[in-house]
Amino acid sequence: MEINTYNTPANINFTVPVRVNRESNPEGTIVNVNGVKVGGTEVVVIAGPCAIESSEQLYETARAAKKGGARIMRGGAFKPRSSPYSFQGLGEEGLKMMRKISNETGLPIVTEVMDTREMEMVAGYADMLQIGSRNMHNYPLLKEAGLIRKPVLLKRGMMATIEEFLLAAEYILNQGNTQVILCERGIRTFETSTRNTLDLSAVPVLKKLTHLPVIVDPSHGTGIRWIVPPMAKAAIASGADGLIMEIHHKPEEALCDGQQSLYPEDFIGLMTELKKIALAVGRELSLP
Amino acid sequence: MEINTYNTPANINFTVPVRVNRESNPEGTIVNVNGVKVGGTEVVVIAGPCAIESSEQLYETARAAKKGGARIMRGGAFKPRSSPYSFQGLGEEGLKMMRKISNETGLPIVTEVMDTREMEMVAGYADMLQIGSRNMHNYPLLKEAGLIRKPVLLKRGMMATIEEFLLAAEYILNQGNTQVILCERGIRTFETSTRNTLDLSAVPVLKKLTHLPVIVDPSHGTGIRWIVPPMAKAAIASGADGLIMEIHHKPEEALCDGQQSLYPEDFIGLMTELKKIALAVGRELSLP
Amino acid sequence: MEINTYNTPANINFTVPVRVNRESNPEGTIVNVNGVKVGGTEVVVIAGPCAIESSEQLYETARAAKKGGARIMRGGAFKPRSSPYSFQGLGEEGLKMMRKISNETGLPIVTEVMDTREMEMVAGYADMLQIGSRNMHNYPLLKEAGLIRKPVLLKRGMMATIEEFLLAAEYILNQGNTQVILCERGIRTFETSTRNTLDLSAVPVLKKLTHLPVIVDPSHGTGIRWIVPPMAKAAIASGADGLIMEIHHKPEEALCDGQQSLYPEDFIGLMTELKKIALAVGRELSLP
Amino acid sequence: MEINTYNTPANINFTVPVRVNRESNPEGTIVNVNGVKVGGTEVVVIAGPCAIESSEQLYETARAAKKGGARIMRGGAFKPRSSPYSFQGLGEEGLKMMRKISNETGLPIVTEVMDTREMEMVAGYADMLQIGSRNMHNYPLLKEAGLIRKPVLLKRGMMATIEEFLLAAEYILNQGNTQVILCERGIRTFETSTRNTLDLSAVPVLKKLTHLPVIVDPSHGTGIRWIVPPMAKAAIASGADGLIMEIHHKPEEALCDGQQSLYPEDFIGLMTELKKIALAVGRELSLP
Repeated sequence: MEINTYNTPANINFTVPVRVNRESNPEGTIVNVNGVKVGGTEVVVIAGPCAIESSEQLYETARAAKKGGARIMRGGAFKPRSSPYSFQGLGEEGLKMMRKISNETGLPIVTEVMDTREMEMVAGYADMLQIGSRNMHNYPLLKEAGLIRKPVLLKRGMMATIEEFLLAAEYILNQGNTQVILCERGIRTFETSTRNTLDLSAVPVLKKLTHLPVIVDPSHGTGIRWIVPPMAKAAIASGADGLIMEIHHKPEEALCDGQQSLYPEDFIGLMTELKKIALAVGRELSLP
Repeated sequence: MEINTYNTPANINFTVPVRVNRESNPEGTIVNVNGVKVGGTEVVVIAGPCAIESSEQLYETARAAKKGGARIMRGGAFKPRSSPYSFQGLGEEGLKMMRKISNETGLPIVTEVMDTREMEMVAGYADMLQIGSRNMHNYPLLKEAGLIRKPVLLKRGMMATIEEFLLAAEYILNQGNTQVILCERGIRTFETSTRNTLDLSAVPVLKKLTHLPVIVDPSHGTGIRWIVPPMAKAAIASGADGLIMEIHHKPEEALCDGQQSLYPEDFIGLMTELKKIALAVGRELSLP
Repeated sequence: MEINTYNTPANINFTVPVRVNRESNPEGTIVNVNGVKVGGTEVVVIAGPCAIESSEQLYETARAAKKGGARIMRGGAFKPRSSPYSFQGLGEEGLKMMRKISNETGLPIVTEVMDTREMEMVAGYADMLQIGSRNMHNYPLLKEAGLIRKPVLLKRGMMATIEEFLLAAEYILNQGNTQVILCERGIRTFETSTRNTLDLSAVPVLKKLTHLPVIVDPSHGTGIRWIVPPMAKAAIASGADGLIMEIHHKPEEALCDGQQSLYPEDFIGLMTELKKIALAVGRELSLP
Repeated sequence: MEINTYNTPANINFTVPVRVNRESNPEGTIVNVNGVKVGGTEVVVIAGPCAIESSEQLYETARAAKKGGARIMRGGAFKPRSSPYSFQGLGEEGLKMMRKISNETGLPIVTEVMDTREMEMVAGYADMLQIGSRNMHNYPLLKEAGLIRKPVLLKRGMMATIEEFLLAAEYILNQGNTQVILCERGIRTFETSTRNTLDLSAVPVLKKLTHLPVIVDPSHGTGIRWIVPPMAKAAIASGADGLIMEIHHKPEEALCDGQQSLYPEDFIGLMTELKKIALAVGRELSLP
């Protein structure tokens, strides 16, 4: 099957593949994460720890997430770490903890899958599967995600162009799964004061080119706690359909990414601020 | 004189020079552009054409700028163009046109200066001098701007780190001129769907590190007209003290950057939207 | 187990993990690819088509490779393509063809593996397994490669720092496989005249930091046929232990990367030139 | 005047301006630096300190430069420094010292000019004027350099594309000065183990597109002393017409860039190695 260019918007110099192309579904796709709808009027916030560390940690962050108004919970059981000597995640044990807390709180969960061999197992616990930045170019994994009957959260590769990002999503849709959310999470540039450079212009570009919902990860996108709130606001102002943010009840003890995790109370306060921005751009954000 | 590190905020791995350091003026510097104050509660919008082309063009855009609520007018008489065969600007003739219209409309003007030999002449017409992205590393020009008694709008180099950006501003302050506004205008990355990658996280970083006002240029930062409005909103949400945007009454005939210039009516409509964001983050934006 | 810093060379601002660290094996590791030794005095050239397309194509390129003096043959059966609609490779059928030709020519073969589920199967045909640029961050795949008793050719991620590249190799060594060759293949930058920017300074940096052999891929590193020869020479001059290059008997009909593939006769001529450079830096390159 | 595309080589996606275009002078331009010819068969090495610090320092480095076989001496009197508090150079006093030593040693000198107002004064002392990386986009300076009757060494901007680099050179040629040498000196990327990423593929690309000589600066291109020799070799292997390198008799006491300056004895030894590479690619490099 050939890539169909449809009408490419002015100034975009590549072709948008057919299945993710906005013209395939002009009104936009709504992704249903176990009852939570992403891509509609409501701005949806996903929150939780970087990595699942313990039941206590999960309970504390789930409580904060829910109190703040998050609609979905995040948490990693399989962690892609640069070093083989870093904490690699609790694996299936972590998924069991998370499922239990999800059932109690009513918050659907999203968690990362890294290996084609584990796709079915992870899908047995999660409400949405995340394909992380380091695996955006992992085509066998994308194809496998296209065969699973669960929504997929696809993060942009840290060096991927928007064109490649859309082609990666096309791999999933091409296997029959159209429940895909795209996530901008920062790209690698020469600037070193932030962990990555959050490319918010990707939000309006993606919203124009594709019918899929687009969310933003200001935690990985900046890597520094005090930069998360302003960038979360900016993301909503730029038109994002949601956010995914890291919170931790004791960031200084976190086994992963503590310096970019919000304290529970800061998260709760931030949500009130985010609602104002959502309203200012004609969206909703429902607080408890 | 040594660089004084003061207290560097968490996770920032460089030292902030003494004169631009926020600790030198914790409440923040207000830059006064012939009566218009930048850096206070009000979000200030600067608008106008990329290049001054004719009296008619200037009148049309000045009218739109004023009607929309812009407080300062922009327009280039000396244009730094990649090619020697591109339109290089009208020079002093253009400055005279602009001064005349400024006097009639009451809008102060900002215009670029590129050559140390022309600094005084340009300062004779302009209310604020712009040092463009290509000249952020032009140290003789920065020193000269430090000796002029006019505010300076310093744009971030398209490949400059935030550390270098602050050091460039320090060159100006070190000569005695503290009336400096910093402008994020996009950096060069591998992404090619936009002209540059607008680095909005630079806004909170700069606001934390320095007392100087920070504005954003979503026109050069994106290079595409339809991406300007969402990024203008995002810039205000991220904490910017103002915006600088290009408008043109006939973008398709513009001698420079037409594809990123807003139509007058779109600019006027956008300003109403921007006001909502400004209010949502506790700022003001006064419309006519 | 902790990362051991050993003595980090002057001006390197990160720690080199223990198993890949040159101090673990100061004289340098020799990787034995079915009899061909990489990492010694001889500069070893790997050549072949981007993708295996047919028996005829393989025979033609194998003949040219052997005639030119290549010691190992490359060819992809599983191709990581940005688009799901591009040629994805012949799969196991291609591996069978390649094994047959390898047995006839005596040239060992290297081919890419992309999926943990296929590692054993591919290892059954190949003399060395390649982990491609897009999978340098695929940690389950790296771990699996560490358990296989075959040499591994690990390509640098197109956006990976040298620090991350070494950590990726550490994943493999940490599982017990020390037969790893590192390959610089170009990184992504703002420059668009070449497909990637070949970072040849990575060669001396890697040779200093690690005991593993380092080779260069000027085909992917530049993406343009006429730039391959000068960069192949430069790679050897910079201290590379070998090269991997694409050749095709009919590049204009290639199903993958034709524009960067050398014609057989050009490859043969180039090898004579490369030998001169090898001798000039005190290395050998044996021609037939 | 319009940009003339002539025949653009395969795979180059921009137009090469008319005056720098190789078709304007297919056999290649020879730049004559007070008797030393750059762009011919001989590989020409330029050496000297980053900044002129004292007569003693200049004498020591000039002696090493001459003994090693350098044909031209470098040294900065006006230094573009990121910080206003760093050593800014000795100014005209430094130029006088350098002229004196040049007259005694017979080595022509190249030195940087940063300000249009100083062009004539600097040209009174120097045999070749350097326009540094930070000023490659300084169009008034380029135009002024086009009016001076001295050769110009134009360094690539650290974030400039090859297209922009050629357009910058066109600014000079367009004013009538065709004696221009282009210098690749490293570009800014995400990689931080080296100061910049030396883009050696720029050498064959530039040699194909333009008739101007192309040299390489491995000192700024890497920023680390022990990486300079392999990259100097690689530069010649890639087809460069020359090199510019920093040497200092006491690098640890240098006021500028000491960590990338070669010791005199290392420079002298390196030159013998470089000659071998030059011969291997059919060039000459005459040693004393």
